[in-house]
Amino acid sequence: MDLLKITDPTFVKDLDVTQMEALSADIREFLIQSTSKTGGHIGPNLGVVELTVALHHCFDSPEDKFLWDVGHQSYVHKILTGRANRFDTLRQHDGLDGFPKRKESEHDVWETGHSSTSLSAAAGMAIARDIRGQKYHVLPIIGDGALTGGMALEALNHIGDMKKNVIVVLNDNNMSIAPNVGAMHNVLGKLRTSGKFKRAKKDIEAAMKKIPTAGDKIAGAAERIKDSIKYLLVQGTFFEEMGYTYLGPVNGHDYNDLITNMEFAKKVKGPVLMHVVTTKGKGYQPAESDRIGNWHGTGPYKIETGDFIKPVGGPPAWSAIISDAVLELAQKDERVVAITPAMPVGSKLEKFATAFPDRFFDVGIAEQHATTMAAGLAALDMKPFLAIYSTFLQRAYDQVVHDICRQELNVMIGIDRAGLVGADGETHQGIFDIGFLRGIPNMTIMMPKDENEARHLVKTAHDYDAGPIAIRYPRGNGIGVKIDDEMKAVPIGSWEALSEPADVAILTFGTTIPMAVEAAMELKRQGIQAGVINARFIKPLDKMMLHDLMKRGVPIITVEESLLKGGFGTAVLEFAEEHGYDQAVVRRIGLPDTFISHGSVDMILAEHGISALGILSTIQKILPEKQIRA
Amino acid sequence: MDLLKITDPTFVKDLDVTQMEALSADIREFLIQSTSKTGGHIGPNLGVVELTVALHHCFDSPEDKFLWDVGHQSYVHKILTGRANRFDTLRQHDGLDGFPKRKESEHDVWETGHSSTSLSAAAGMAIARDIRGQKYHVLPIIGDGALTGGMALEALNHIGDMKKNVIVVLNDNNMSIAPNVGAMHNVLGKLRTSGKFKRAKKDIEAAMKKIPTAGDKIAGAAERIKDSIKYLLVQGTFFEEMGYTYLGPVNGHDYNDLITNMEFAKKVKGPVLMHVVTTKGKGYQPAESDRIGNWHGTGPYKIETGDFIKPVGGPPAWSAIISDAVLELAQKDERVVAITPAMPVGSKLEKFATAFPDRFFDVGIAEQHATTMAAGLAALDMKPFLAIYSTFLQRAYDQVVHDICRQELNVMIGIDRAGLVGADGETHQGIFDIGFLRGIPNMTIMMPKDENEARHLVKTAHDYDAGPIAIRYPRGNGIGVKIDDEMKAVPIGSWEALSEPADVAILTFGTTIPMAVEAAMELKRQGIQAGVINARFIKPLDKMMLHDLMKRGVPIITVEESLLKGGFGTAVLEFAEEHGYDQAVVRRIGLPDTFISHGSVDMILAEHGISALGILSTIQKILPEKQIRA
Repeated sequence: MDLLKITDPTFVKDLDVTQMEALSADIREFLIQSTSKTGGHIGPNLGVVELTVALHHCFDSPEDKFLWDVGHQSYVHKILTGRANRFDTLRQHDGLDGFPKRKESEHDVWETGHSSTSLSAAAGMAIARDIRGQKYHVLPIIGDGALTGGMALEALNHIGDMKKNVIVVLNDNNMSIAPNVGAMHNVLGKLRTSGKFKRAKKDIEAAMKKIPTAGDKIAGAAERIKDSIKYLLVQGTFFEEMGYTYLGPVNGHDYNDLITNMEFAKKVKGPVLMHVVTTKGKGYQPAESDRIGNWHGTGPYKIETGDFIKPVGGPPAWSAIISDAVLELAQKDERVVAITPAMPVGSKLEKFATAFPDRFFDVGIAEQHATTMAAGLAALDMKPFLAIYSTFLQRAYDQVVHDICRQELNVMIGIDRAGLVGADGETHQGIFDIGFLRGIPNMTIMMPKDENEARHLVKTAHDYDAGPIAIRYPRGNGIGVKIDDEMKAVPIGSWEALSEPADVAILTFGTTIPMAVEAAMELKRQGIQAGVINARFIKPLDKMMLHDLMKRGVPIITVEESLLKGGFGTAVLEFAEEHGYDQAVVRRIGLPDTFISHGSVDMILAEHGISALGILSTIQKILPEKQIRA
Repeated sequence: MDLLKITDPTFVKDLDVTQMEALSADIREFLIQSTSKTGGHIGPNLGVVELTVALHHCFDSPEDKFLWDVGHQSYVHKILTGRANRFDTLRQHDGLDGFPKRKESEHDVWETGHSSTSLSAAAGMAIARDIRGQKYHVLPIIGDGALTGGMALEALNHIGDMKKNVIVVLNDNNMSIAPNVGAMHNVLGKLRTSGKFKRAKKDIEAAMKKIPTAGDKIAGAAERIKDSIKYLLVQGTFFEEMGYTYLGPVNGHDYNDLITNMEFAKKVKGPVLMHVVTTKGKGYQPAESDRIGNWHGTGPYKIETGDFIKPVGGPPAWSAIISDAVLELAQKDERVVAITPAMPVGSKLEKFATAFPDRFFDVGIAEQHATTMAAGLAALDMKPFLAIYSTFLQRAYDQVVHDICRQELNVMIGIDRAGLVGADGETHQGIFDIGFLRGIPNMTIMMPKDENEARHLVKTAHDYDAGPIAIRYPRGNGIGVKIDDEMKAVPIGSWEALSEPADVAILTFGTTIPMAVEAAMELKRQGIQAGVINARFIKPLDKMMLHDLMKRGVPIITVEESLLKGGFGTAVLEFAEEHGYDQAVVRRIGLPDTFISHGSVDMILAEHGISALGILSTIQKILPEKQIRA
């Protein structure tokens, strides 16, 4: 059928299984064609085609509430709710969002991006429903990876205790970004491979009937033996013990199985755990056979070959630069271990994992545990390197405060994807970490200007033994500079003047240095000597340099790819106040007090004056006598 | 024995059970005598006397690592490690800390305060040990309440998966602060009441031997039936499935039972879960019979009667003022529900819980879930009130950013214990929330000057429907003002001039207003007209008032009982910069960039110049021509 003409999902209710199977094929073809041009989370979405169609067949969205955990698997839902015609704009500026968005559709009742939130939201929605005496269904759809996140377990526990009608759809695809970690995953693994469990159940029930009653002494025990049937069959009694009716395993690509179980789930009183087994990438061979997560989210690709369309060559990724430097240090120092919460590929830690399997720890989606485990290692004088995306570090804020910084433990935090991330949009921007880390006592924060300095800063972090130290690095690739033979630590709190700040000083770091250099060159042409300062330490500041600038009355511009509120520029304002430089003129350039949607990084930066032009224009305002031409 | 003379715990290793029982009695008497004078966490510590003595008997601290989760149950450990002679200074300035502190003793290998961190730290320590080929034991001691915290579950999962030697001591006292919540607690409940489980086990093993083999069809099934013995006996198979050897239930007040199990645990390969059942308050009748948590942590009390020694009368507690106002609103508006993560008593929500049992939710120690559940409620147009201590809100930072603020959901956040908390010390100070909340887009933050305004601000929060809104309130009691008959919303972002800022303006809010008023009165006597501004909105600022002050060139002093970095004063600096008030003179008073230890709030404030004197002294420096006498 023509998916572009869908305006509403109600048509799915009238389809029979054969028609739904045809629809699935159309959706798969559409997803492959579409994401081959725009990129996107193709693997997860190919895996949930039947599941999503079946949900819309059996339930009534938006009356019934679908909560897509993490949310990158909501493309099929978007197609069925009338958004196929916008897929050519997927993840682009002003285009279709890659995640559920309330503003986009009444069928998106809950927004996601970070994992493991859907169960808590579902608990809230079920409570709201019951207080109002309404009757709709609440269906969080959560992957087995997201289920290891602590807050999902908190919610699972609470929903089980409240006995609320919530149908938890566990989408067990056995691979969420990276192989899942943890005992709980093993339980799911057992379930998955148990396969013939229904037949086994009958056999064992027959066997159990022959158990003789053993008199009063085990009164109750026989009852328990009966109950235990379900325990030992399902092996993972986890969910049952938590108060859920367990349904499954359901074949997530079989409409009959899906619909039978969904219709049954509707009738159950109390919480249901419907265990649906799906195959990521289903129906597109390169994605289906992917085992390391290359097809989780992709850029554009050639459909026929499954080749990614990428610029050839170019400098290595920032993640690789940092992780390789950590690996080099680990080769000389047994104390160095690496930790990632479910991002071994994204953080380019494969080489480390191969070289030191006993010193590499992927803890799954568990940022809190990862962070405090790093603290535990450091408490016994190890040198843990915690690689974590800026946006996911948010989930470990308390652990950074309470466990790492308060105890002054020597944890190296590699803050990956710092700054704007582009297509993933507002849930994934790395623009909060400076604000929330800078306020924590004992924290040191750095960001390198290029990959060579990055290596020196990794060495700096390694050699530092007076508390935690973070190194931020952006998404994407380095800028292609020559690498020094040796890594050398730089002094803590030292900035670097890239040009002499005679008339004005531009203080900036990381990704925004090139635009400052460009602005300074233009100013030079106009006879103004602007100093570009590589403020590679965001905390502590280079006090000597700031005293010098402020004593000389040099106007200061700060530039950052981060939120202005509480950011680096603010630190400079605080410095001026602390030291009574009432005459200091400081202007801050950065991101405003709003969430930043998806779009190209350059466009977003330019929109907010974070550009050479923006810098010139700001300087123009504070040096009016100079008549600067932007 | 004379506990004051203990310098080292090794003597415990030589004691026999009778001697340890005598020691227990001495310790209990000491704890009761001591805390009756100083206050402290008496209930939890009376519960772990035998457990702690047995740990020191069976293991070798500090070689073996004891990690006290939450940490308020570490008094017995402190006594046995040579700190009895400092208990008269417990929780006082420069005195013995109420929690484990690395600087205090080599036996305190891990610091706590917030719950659920010990398992992650233990994972890190076990890894460090194994990398180095060392042999010591790692023993996190965690309560059943703390086990519901998501990060504990993340760690439990990971430890089970790694199969590391970690002996998790589950201190199951069936009451951690408030009755525990959740399905997992029910599992523990079943275990606890199963009682005769050892005898039952034998009976059932006998019965199971009579099961006929049912041929090839259930090959494997018989094996599973055998395995299932332990499942159905223990009922909670949770821990076994996660890869732990389960030991227990152990009578936590029986040395023979404790020691037998500990010695066995030493020999087990892989992780152990030792389930120890204890009675909170054991040995002191008022504490032992407490069912609502009054004896969890106390001030001084009369030993004979169990009466708390408290100032009689006085204004109501801040928590009560706020919670009562929320209750009043709930009586008129069915959308209002109240949520607490395990602090129903501390947050004074008992009345609400009684009036609206179906609209009150204690979710246990699960701040992340509590916060996102509030978001889920608000997504369906409910009006959730989330009562949460400032220090515990840290654990839900990402949920505030990603789930509440990003979706602009109308959640009312009651930030209890905002500001300094005194005796609980550095892990519990509510001094970070302004810094980390102010940087989040869409967030509104208020703090009332007195209990009457508190009620108006609660109404303001209730009526506001443009996103989340937080109201901060301190520990302790109100100041005793008259209460208006009716609650009235105030305009968002409106400050209140308590006196005319002619010569200088003091911008402050909440607890620090009285000292500003005092300073202004002294200035008035000296002929200087200082305006005290009740800056009840920390975000957004009162822009009109700030424009007026800055245009007129009035010097501004900001005062806050919070960290300076990124705080309220910083917001004023940012305002000046944003609007180009380069001539504005602003001075900020607040807490420095360090963690703040336990001690009296007034003393800590004075130490950092947060006092009338401090304000005068600061004004003196910026108005030198006025010759102010402090």
